[in-house]
Amino acid sequence: MSRIFNFSAGPATLPESVLKQVQSELLDWRGAGMGVMEMSHRDKEFMSIASQCEADLREVLAVPANYKVLFMQGGATAQFGIVPQNLLRGKTSADFVLTGDWGKKAAKEITKFGKANIAASAEAEKFNHIPDRAGWKLDPNAAYVHITTNETIHGVQFREVPEVGAVPLVADASSDIACRPLDVSKFGLIYAGAQKNIGPAGLTLVIVRDDLIGQTLPGTFGIHDYKAVADNESMLNTPSTFSWYVCGLVFQWLKAEGGLSAVGARNERKAKALYDYIDSQDFYKNPVKKEDRSIMNVPFTLANAETNDAEFLKGAKAAGLNGLKGHRAVGGMRASIYNAMPEAGVAALIDYMKEFVRTRG
Amino acid sequence: MSRIFNFSAGPATLPESVLKQVQSELLDWRGAGMGVMEMSHRDKEFMSIASQCEADLREVLAVPANYKVLFMQGGATAQFGIVPQNLLRGKTSADFVLTGDWGKKAAKEITKFGKANIAASAEAEKFNHIPDRAGWKLDPNAAYVHITTNETIHGVQFREVPEVGAVPLVADASSDIACRPLDVSKFGLIYAGAQKNIGPAGLTLVIVRDDLIGQTLPGTFGIHDYKAVADNESMLNTPSTFSWYVCGLVFQWLKAEGGLSAVGARNERKAKALYDYIDSQDFYKNPVKKEDRSIMNVPFTLANAETNDAEFLKGAKAAGLNGLKGHRAVGGMRASIYNAMPEAGVAALIDYMKEFVRTRG
Repeated sequence: MSRIFNFSAGPATLPESVLKQVQSELLDWRGAGMGVMEMSHRDKEFMSIASQCEADLREVLAVPANYKVLFMQGGATAQFGIVPQNLLRGKTSADFVLTGDWGKKAAKEITKFGKANIAASAEAEKFNHIPDRAGWKLDPNAAYVHITTNETIHGVQFREVPEVGAVPLVADASSDIACRPLDVSKFGLIYAGAQKNIGPAGLTLVIVRDDLIGQTLPGTFGIHDYKAVADNESMLNTPSTFSWYVCGLVFQWLKAEGGLSAVGARNERKAKALYDYIDSQDFYKNPVKKEDRSIMNVPFTLANAETNDAEFLKGAKAAGLNGLKGHRAVGGMRASIYNAMPEAGVAALIDYMKEFVRTRG
Repeated sequence: MSRIFNFSAGPATLPESVLKQVQSELLDWRGAGMGVMEMSHRDKEFMSIASQCEADLREVLAVPANYKVLFMQGGATAQFGIVPQNLLRGKTSADFVLTGDWGKKAAKEITKFGKANIAASAEAEKFNHIPDRAGWKLDPNAAYVHITTNETIHGVQFREVPEVGAVPLVADASSDIACRPLDVSKFGLIYAGAQKNIGPAGLTLVIVRDDLIGQTLPGTFGIHDYKAVADNESMLNTPSTFSWYVCGLVFQWLKAEGGLSAVGARNERKAKALYDYIDSQDFYKNPVKKEDRSIMNVPFTLANAETNDAEFLKGAKAAGLNGLKGHRAVGGMRASIYNAMPEAGVAALIDYMKEFVRTRG
């Protein structure tokens, strides 16, 4: 077996030790005589897996006691609708700060249920920065303020949690949850599809403050009512059990790696190495304002893209570097360097980039 | 490793050969250098897995060309709402034939969007039969007629597809899809959570006739619009990739086992052996009318339940027979004998049941 370095934006690389554990337990989870995929979600074995996952997640992410942790389905895209169905609570609009395409999608979906007030947008500058907080046009009557903590496509990330006053802050943190320590208490709600930093696709994590749940719009599905999901410990219907289990192993791995301070420091080193190299020469470019650059997704373009892009990808694949093609919306390349990407992977990428310039630049 | 016989109602036992293949490919799918959990859903590797799965599924289930096959999330419970959002199409009600608790739940969820006309119900008789077709009070203006082909809790299954005329027939087939040959062309739509006969939880299969899609109620999520899902080959957002892959392996296994005729015949033998034994003595009882008994879920009660049930379950576990506790709604025991349960498992269960009667009956 030869493992490559996988820079896919998601689903994405997982820690090898986690995969090995999944592999060893696949037909027989710790003497249960069956694999986790086969366990009833009501079995005491799976209940222990589920509750251990939540406990580890709460510990690693330092989730305050007055927040519920929900394990749902449908990805962040489902939450684009579920959030307003739960959080409008008699109000008619929410504020959106747009720093990329995912925020735009969230702001579009809410229009089925209420109004999106675009408090700020970097779209005119092709989402190359986070709009300055001082210029945000927040509405004091908004139900919540929505941000995308990390825009996967554009490689733009909030470095600090913005202050938004009394209105609850809601974040799509799909592509940077658990990438470094975060003060959860500054948010009303955080949601994240699992398939970048948490585990396999098919699981959605929701962390929501107690006082915000219990009121839904007419037409909200029973399984989309946060209060009902919380009251039933995310087992109102059959949850995505196997993904939940893998998520639990990832959080145990995060603990073993030293928690979010250690993992965050490593992520900063990985990103710095890559950006430093990009900034040190003229062949590769990253368009994002330095202080807003993502430590998870690093898009970059090549000089003479028409002739070089395809060759770059071909050579990368041959060098065991996969998933580097950029999103069609921005073109070029994108290196997603989530928690599970080792520093050796980033070093190998930089080596390959240097060699490519030397031979073809 | 010692595998037990797992009679759980779902998530449920999977074919051992499928699990072994998943295990061997977990860190490196066929030389890709990464596991399926880690693949971008846009990678050509995963695209090939997804399309092969659909091709095999269409072959095994004999899905006509004018039907779309969709791979969604949220389980059958999400479909309880998604179906009316897509299929009401200007009409205000649908007909429901209630043969158990799952049908009741479906009939409840539609009331958020329209009216449920209960065309027939076996609730007064504790769902121990399928109401005679002649007595159904169908509404010619209904948007569709909804049935639950197999009621997992009560062990009641349609043996024939009922004739309902021009109104589309919609079926929740979560717990008996692919259990034997089925004429898909008699249905407008079939939906099924994967976690009984198809694969891991977190994937929902929808088979829908072309002419029924393209019109949704206001407030329908983008990812719940069957037409949009179909147009985007179930990749409008990140699908439940790993479950999709396992589902594909299960359909390859079904082909290798001889397809639905062979698997259906085996299922009939398994069910007949168990019901024949139950009917041959007085200690165990199954309350369902013989011609409506499920070949997938066999509920049964013990004489002197108060003293015997706990002992039965304890002894079963010790004998390597798991997941036999009945649903709290009906009590007693339930043996779920899906496709992946070998005949040896049913034989072992019957042996244990006989021995239990001999020593404690």
